[in-house]
Amino acid sequence: MKWPTHGANPQFLYKALHLDMPETVIDFSANINPIGPPATVKNRWNELFSLVSDYPDPTAERLTGLLSKQEGVRKEQILVGNGGAELISLVGRLLTGKKVLIVQPAFSEYEEACRVNQCEVRYHLMDVDRWELRIDELLVSLREVDAVFLCNPNNPTGMFFPKHTIEVLARECARYGTLLIVDEAFYDFIEEYESIVSCLQHCENMIILRSMTKMFSIPGIRLGYLMANEALLAKIRESKPHWSVNAIAMKVGEWCLSESDYIEQTIQLIKKERERLQSFYRDQEFSYSPSNVNFYLLKDTKVSDPFPFFRFLMEKGMIPRHTMNFPGLDGKWLRLAIKGENEHERLLEVMSAWRRLDS
Amino acid sequence: MKWPTHGANPQFLYKALHLDMPETVIDFSANINPIGPPATVKNRWNELFSLVSDYPDPTAERLTGLLSKQEGVRKEQILVGNGGAELISLVGRLLTGKKVLIVQPAFSEYEEACRVNQCEVRYHLMDVDRWELRIDELLVSLREVDAVFLCNPNNPTGMFFPKHTIEVLARECARYGTLLIVDEAFYDFIEEYESIVSCLQHCENMIILRSMTKMFSIPGIRLGYLMANEALLAKIRESKPHWSVNAIAMKVGEWCLSESDYIEQTIQLIKKERERLQSFYRDQEFSYSPSNVNFYLLKDTKVSDPFPFFRFLMEKGMIPRHTMNFPGLDGKWLRLAIKGENEHERLLEVMSAWRRLDS
Repeated sequence: MKWPTHGANPQFLYKALHLDMPETVIDFSANINPIGPPATVKNRWNELFSLVSDYPDPTAERLTGLLSKQEGVRKEQILVGNGGAELISLVGRLLTGKKVLIVQPAFSEYEEACRVNQCEVRYHLMDVDRWELRIDELLVSLREVDAVFLCNPNNPTGMFFPKHTIEVLARECARYGTLLIVDEAFYDFIEEYESIVSCLQHCENMIILRSMTKMFSIPGIRLGYLMANEALLAKIRESKPHWSVNAIAMKVGEWCLSESDYIEQTIQLIKKERERLQSFYRDQEFSYSPSNVNFYLLKDTKVSDPFPFFRFLMEKGMIPRHTMNFPGLDGKWLRLAIKGENEHERLLEVMSAWRRLDS
Repeated sequence: MKWPTHGANPQFLYKALHLDMPETVIDFSANINPIGPPATVKNRWNELFSLVSDYPDPTAERLTGLLSKQEGVRKEQILVGNGGAELISLVGRLLTGKKVLIVQPAFSEYEEACRVNQCEVRYHLMDVDRWELRIDELLVSLREVDAVFLCNPNNPTGMFFPKHTIEVLARECARYGTLLIVDEAFYDFIEEYESIVSCLQHCENMIILRSMTKMFSIPGIRLGYLMANEALLAKIRESKPHWSVNAIAMKVGEWCLSESDYIEQTIQLIKKERERLQSFYRDQEFSYSPSNVNFYLLKDTKVSDPFPFFRFLMEKGMIPRHTMNFPGLDGKWLRLAIKGENEHERLLEVMSAWRRLDS
């Protein structure tokens, strides 16, 4: 069968599995903040209508200015884009025909964007048993490629590499003229996360990717940004279609940037629910990745074929993300988003039912 | 000075001209339906909030289905995109490194998309005095290029070439394996316009571009589509970022497709206002392009330097589109959108004031 390459839009997954979609499902396949968008977005939604009839500002001046303050980088070092996907696509374009290393498992869009642009793609496979980079091997590989993609915090494991590790990579990349692309789409789910953005000023060959759709639960409207040095960013901007970020997305993005309480509330909720889930999984002898963010990998260690477990969850309307197209995982794990208390009540009931079947 | 390459976002134009922007301005530089979005969009605006938290359907299945019915082509021949700009950018990508002919004057994005993708760009200059193609010369040129861009109805003249002419071009293109790209962004402003889409079934090497932002006055949310044969379309789709069309745009697009009364009302309004303007311009000895759509070219034939006229209009808050970057026009004409009765009252007062100055 042809596995859908992404989470979300679960109707495609049911179709591919020839399963009827239950009337009530809970979608754990998309890593979106379970709280939903900040209240401001709902409360001020009507104001957005007035933006429909004018072209959006193609320079996203206002949003860029706010991001510049938040990140402590110059406006010319920020490119606002139509979600992470557009930004990754633009980076792929920049890398046309180059040798690219992807630290795997990772978000599948990097590889797709590279392949479309005739890159030669290599993998550095993490040590999934220890959830670690094989750092010595990775450092050696850097000299043989033009660019390396690293997802930090990592999607799909949910774990992050400390800033020190990224600095070591950045230094080694600088030595060989290798471009380092760090995708920080989930950075804001970790209170103690230290972004590599503070190194941007003295790092010529680094690109940092950010998404605003995960934390602020706005994947329907597409918003992200990219940070890099001026010259590199100007080159990337050349391939970007005019007005690719629509006026609604830009305004909602501006509102979201002042939502620090909402972020704090999200982090606490995710932490509480994550601990509760992990405690259950430990008791019930499931394996999970020691995630720091709003999703995690899960495996039933008592069974060798992961497919019946996956199918069981789907039949019960609990939709996980398969990992068939994550090199290094190859379908052995499932990825699940962390959601709210009610969703987890239902999820853990289904997990318990599976466990009873199994024994 | 550096002239902004597009209409809309007039603050950039005032800045470039070192002029203060008057408190009240009327923006004639963007060719958007003056009626504003269909009432449905405003009335149902609140429903759109529920789409914010889910990923958009990357296949735009529903909207594509509706378009397929409207256009009488198969779903696989339609690609929904993030406004005309994204679609033109994708076509540029497809043409990487090729020889491209642009029938000029035309929308500036074609050339930009081609240049970014290392195309060799040539022009076919229309006979602007007669508002005609130099058809014999154009047909000969087709054999020397890989692709040709034609904007029909033409932006900036507002005139259209009859279907027969496009058919002749398409036949000649087929003979030489030249790709014909017809941008029909303004086709729906002309009641009697016959689209070339009916030829798509037997035309392997044709791309038709459509915009939904002009007729439905929704440039803020970005929406357009492209039609081509399956194989060509599949190739174009490869470079398109996932989810580039956001959920708001898709749903609004679905609503707009049933707005036939609104389209009829728009056509009548534009026609009435166009005739009124033309009558004024004839009396006052201005030159204008005999436009069929919602914009036209204007020139004061009594003066040789067009700049003071442009500046006068800007100072009075009447914002035209300069034509500095339209080859063949080179700034000698101004382009103005057709708007409503009130806007034209004010515009014609200002035009009269200019005429009094002049004499």
